[in-house]
Amino acid sequence: MHSDLWLEEKFSDFLGLRFKVENVLFSGKSEFQTVDVVETKGHGKMLLNDGLVMVTERDEFAYHDMIAHVPLFVHPNPKNVLVIGGGDGGTAREVIRHSSVVQCTMVEIDAMVVDACKQHIPQTAKELENPKVNLIIGDGVKFVKETTEKFDVIIVDSTDPIGPAQPLFGEEFYQDVFNCLTEDGIVVSQGESSWYAMDIQQSLLKVLNKVFPQSYLYSFSNLTYPGGLWSFTFASKRYHPINDFQAQRVSDSGLEFDYYNQQLHSAAFALPSFAKKGLKGLIDND
Amino acid sequence: MHSDLWLEEKFSDFLGLRFKVENVLFSGKSEFQTVDVVETKGHGKMLLNDGLVMVTERDEFAYHDMIAHVPLFVHPNPKNVLVIGGGDGGTAREVIRHSSVVQCTMVEIDAMVVDACKQHIPQTAKELENPKVNLIIGDGVKFVKETTEKFDVIIVDSTDPIGPAQPLFGEEFYQDVFNCLTEDGIVVSQGESSWYAMDIQQSLLKVLNKVFPQSYLYSFSNLTYPGGLWSFTFASKRYHPINDFQAQRVSDSGLEFDYYNQQLHSAAFALPSFAKKGLKGLIDND
Repeated sequence: MHSDLWLEEKFSDFLGLRFKVENVLFSGKSEFQTVDVVETKGHGKMLLNDGLVMVTERDEFAYHDMIAHVPLFVHPNPKNVLVIGGGDGGTAREVIRHSSVVQCTMVEIDAMVVDACKQHIPQTAKELENPKVNLIIGDGVKFVKETTEKFDVIIVDSTDPIGPAQPLFGEEFYQDVFNCLTEDGIVVSQGESSWYAMDIQQSLLKVLNKVFPQSYLYSFSNLTYPGGLWSFTFASKRYHPINDFQAQRVSDSGLEFDYYNQQLHSAAFALPSFAKKGLKGLIDND
Repeated sequence: MHSDLWLEEKFSDFLGLRFKVENVLFSGKSEFQTVDVVETKGHGKMLLNDGLVMVTERDEFAYHDMIAHVPLFVHPNPKNVLVIGGGDGGTAREVIRHSSVVQCTMVEIDAMVVDACKQHIPQTAKELENPKVNLIIGDGVKFVKETTEKFDVIIVDSTDPIGPAQPLFGEEFYQDVFNCLTEDGIVVSQGESSWYAMDIQQSLLKVLNKVFPQSYLYSFSNLTYPGGLWSFTFASKRYHPINDFQAQRVSDSGLEFDYYNQQLHSAAFALPSFAKKGLKGLIDND
């Protein structure tokens, strides 16, 4: 590609994020969404679903560290983990680094995302053939309704609540998630941005509050998402994300992380005042 | 303005941030830099120096809360505060909310920035006529070399180390800052981004380490800066930013903040692992 190629992710009608593109590696349209993989300048390879940046090689560790290691270091002995979505493979890759994990079931609706990442972004997809990963191409909403398995931790690694991910933000789905969690189970979900999408956060947390005794929001910094400050929700049947977190387990694990660490674990639950105000009554952060 | 007007801030040659512009309110060129104020869609009024976004009405509270209230709630009795730069007025506005502060001296090199903000962004500039603010149009580098005054807290609210702000990142400047701080003084400085400007952070922290017994980095989320995760450095003659922070003083102050709060104060010093690795030996965060 010799022309000056850029891609732009628009947010609403007033913001655009432009990334320099060196090469288009894959471009397809599944029955669910468009799927593109590009080689960028400065951010490595990048996956886009419906034109929205999902992961880049440069910063994917931030998202995957924080979605996986926060619940897996709170639950004292996570053996059976379910990932809904997460087709790039980065979340499953981090989940199976925990020696307690016997199996990571991953239910991704869109085979095209998995195949594109296996072929072009091995950095995230490299553990999808690991025997501990049970990859199911299917509908996560249907899966949690029908399965008789119980999971210690469920991770909802979804896109925004448009397109195929929309039901993943609803009450019926979370009722089913509750039912297939063990009695001390935890669910963590992609939780959008307090800067630009407080309305989605409020709506998701209202659902979690109806279904779970405890709900929290925690933050991290995503380099390539609009606004940078991004969130995950943490809903739990029993464990408090800070009081039941044993920092010693992080060093005992021998694992090293580029983003996550034991200080950041608790710090991530300290939210800016405007987020606390906007989510008042919906989160148990303090 | 009826055409479809956008402005773009480029970062290096691989990233662009585009903002929808409704109206250009001011556009000038001083002896130091270009100065623009635009009315955006979605981010309110926006100040740009040399084409780089400085403040927007939508998110300026994050930057100004975190540059001002972190040092002012660590120092037990800040009376005399110096702001270098900060021509938009937002930092001085936050400084004088502390009842202990008798005077906030502000040394801004570029009268055009001050005048443009007074006229077009009263949200940040509204306290510049307050009798507690002693606004000096002049060179901050020269000021700290020549003044015989002593300050409890100095805040270096500068642009990036290009153009007029370049000397504000050097050792000679910080030696002079050290000399005009009281014996328990604190200096906080605009500290760039660990994502995109680790090299500048390293170079600034090397300088601070030579001059001060303790140096730290703390983070916050800036909606409109490239990458979102932004930093301030905290260098101190005596006080530890967490151990000497008395959270009770925040609630006792009666002040309310849209970004800062007492949990976030300490949490801001918990850095992602990649930042800790990149700044190893240069920060005393833990």
